[in-house]
Amino acid sequence: MNTSLLDACWGKPVERLPVWFMRQAGRCLPEYRALREKHGMFDIFRAPELAAEVTMQPVRRLGVDAAILFSDIVVPLAAVGIEIDLQPGPVLARPFRSAADLARLRPLEPEADMPYVLDTVRLLAGELDVPVIGFAGAPFTLASYLVEGGSSKTLGRTKAVMHADPAFWAELLDRLAGIVVASLRAQVAAGARAVQVFDSWAGFLSPADYRRSVLPATRKIFAGLADLGVPRIHFGVGTGELLELLAEAGADVVGVDWRVPLDRARARLGDHVAVQGNLDPAVCLAPWEVVAREATGVLEANGGRPGHIFNLGWGVLPETDPDILRRLVDFVHGD
Amino acid sequence: MNTSLLDACWGKPVERLPVWFMRQAGRCLPEYRALREKHGMFDIFRAPELAAEVTMQPVRRLGVDAAILFSDIVVPLAAVGIEIDLQPGPVLARPFRSAADLARLRPLEPEADMPYVLDTVRLLAGELDVPVIGFAGAPFTLASYLVEGGSSKTLGRTKAVMHADPAFWAELLDRLAGIVVASLRAQVAAGARAVQVFDSWAGFLSPADYRRSVLPATRKIFAGLADLGVPRIHFGVGTGELLELLAEAGADVVGVDWRVPLDRARARLGDHVAVQGNLDPAVCLAPWEVVAREATGVLEANGGRPGHIFNLGWGVLPETDPDILRRLVDFVHGD
Repeated sequence: MNTSLLDACWGKPVERLPVWFMRQAGRCLPEYRALREKHGMFDIFRAPELAAEVTMQPVRRLGVDAAILFSDIVVPLAAVGIEIDLQPGPVLARPFRSAADLARLRPLEPEADMPYVLDTVRLLAGELDVPVIGFAGAPFTLASYLVEGGSSKTLGRTKAVMHADPAFWAELLDRLAGIVVASLRAQVAAGARAVQVFDSWAGFLSPADYRRSVLPATRKIFAGLADLGVPRIHFGVGTGELLELLAEAGADVVGVDWRVPLDRARARLGDHVAVQGNLDPAVCLAPWEVVAREATGVLEANGGRPGHIFNLGWGVLPETDPDILRRLVDFVHGD
Repeated sequence: MNTSLLDACWGKPVERLPVWFMRQAGRCLPEYRALREKHGMFDIFRAPELAAEVTMQPVRRLGVDAAILFSDIVVPLAAVGIEIDLQPGPVLARPFRSAADLARLRPLEPEADMPYVLDTVRLLAGELDVPVIGFAGAPFTLASYLVEGGSSKTLGRTKAVMHADPAFWAELLDRLAGIVVASLRAQVAAGARAVQVFDSWAGFLSPADYRRSVLPATRKIFAGLADLGVPRIHFGVGTGELLELLAEAGADVVGVDWRVPLDRARARLGDHVAVQGNLDPAVCLAPWEVVAREATGVLEANGGRPGHIFNLGWGVLPETDPDILRRLVDFVHGD
């Protein structure tokens, strides 16, 4: 087993710097696109052989040091009965508007509600010699989809609810935190060796709003995983001002987007947590010489400190040439 | 003439804190919507009486300390012959792809190419007892529309061009900077008392990329306005890591979005520049008590230091109740 990812998460020295890419499974890979011509997203999520195949494709092709389960952050919501589709962003049939909607958010029973996810993790854990990363969406980001009914450029409605009805908001996030903990604990029990919590839209919040209205729920998640002994990665986009709070929530590793140079991120975070990141995904659309220059910039900003997992600052863009990613993995490995 | 805006821009003490709102003209005002039922966007931009009317509506209704010209950052591009529409975001008939496209970007002759903009400013300067703010889009943001052909969630194509063809990119931004300088100088000659440069999408860039690929063009703009003696405001969204660079470009005032508390922004910027901002626009969708609490947070984060213009951290959301904005103006004024 290649454990460089786990070692780096715990701040231990590693022989080769671990690297993986958010959204490495799917999107830019031709073998994935071929599969998608025959199957819908949820069809793949719900078919363990297919989901495991898509998860393993980038491990084979790119040589990354971790696999991340091919699924979506809304899968546990669909699993408790929320009518939600991916087009490709989430679209809800009936957005959440008031406390009456909370009844639709019952606790998740992972083995009964989403056995296909756990079967996929089991298949992967049996097949792969790199760690499988389990994942979930964070309560704020999940709540934004429930309240907006889909994607939003401003999260105006989400924030309006957050500000106008703090009791409903707190209960909503608390229930979502419960679902997230159940999902992640089950993924770890099935064989995931690390977990990542995606709070993709947390960066829309000021630090004061995050602390007041979101931190209690994310704390609950990380506390609810503490006894498992697996590294807990916490990631969001545009979170330069929230990095300390993402760590304070209880993460072992904080994901940093490309906007914040790693030396600045380290200065804000201190030495207690590892960092993951943070090459701009758009750089991978450029010629190799530029990719190498910018990747070197990331490595230099970290300055060789232990506790670094190389990644992009957000997900792989669909237009990316997989060969560039393959070269990038070799480059980070020093091959 | 109420000069509190200008005084604050220069860091002078003011009796009443100046306040205005990005996108205060249009959007949320019923009198604007009524007018829009009869006229298209470009029809209003090109009719000085109408554009002046829309510009003055928020001054009358909200009691703000400045008017910002009702126009759009793409107007100078349309004025030099680029086929561009607002639907409502910019959409280009023929996106820029290579050096051959540069020929389509001839220098702007403001009096000949966009006389209606200058006539609007002249009307406003003659009518209003608050300063008129002229504005332009910054080269990076304008280039992103030219290259993407419209809005983009990632600016992937823009960055790919920036990285892959730095000579074309530099020439593109330099030409855009020339257009911006010509537009802003003409607006000031027509009576604008301050200018704001909107680099709305600069926050998509890492500091290293901004410094290498964008700063030379923004420097050219601010240097090209230095002799006019009007305050120069520089604003972008998600620019927490770029604040120092926005100032280094030559701004007198740096606009701060809601993500960065003003005390942190001040710490990064030093005392040489004023700050503008930074209430989360989404807060204005909440009940008044929340708006007052959050506005107090903005004032406290600035700590009463001179050189503060109160504003939102980005534009007014269309769903905003104008009465909330009116109360907010009074609150900031201490009335």
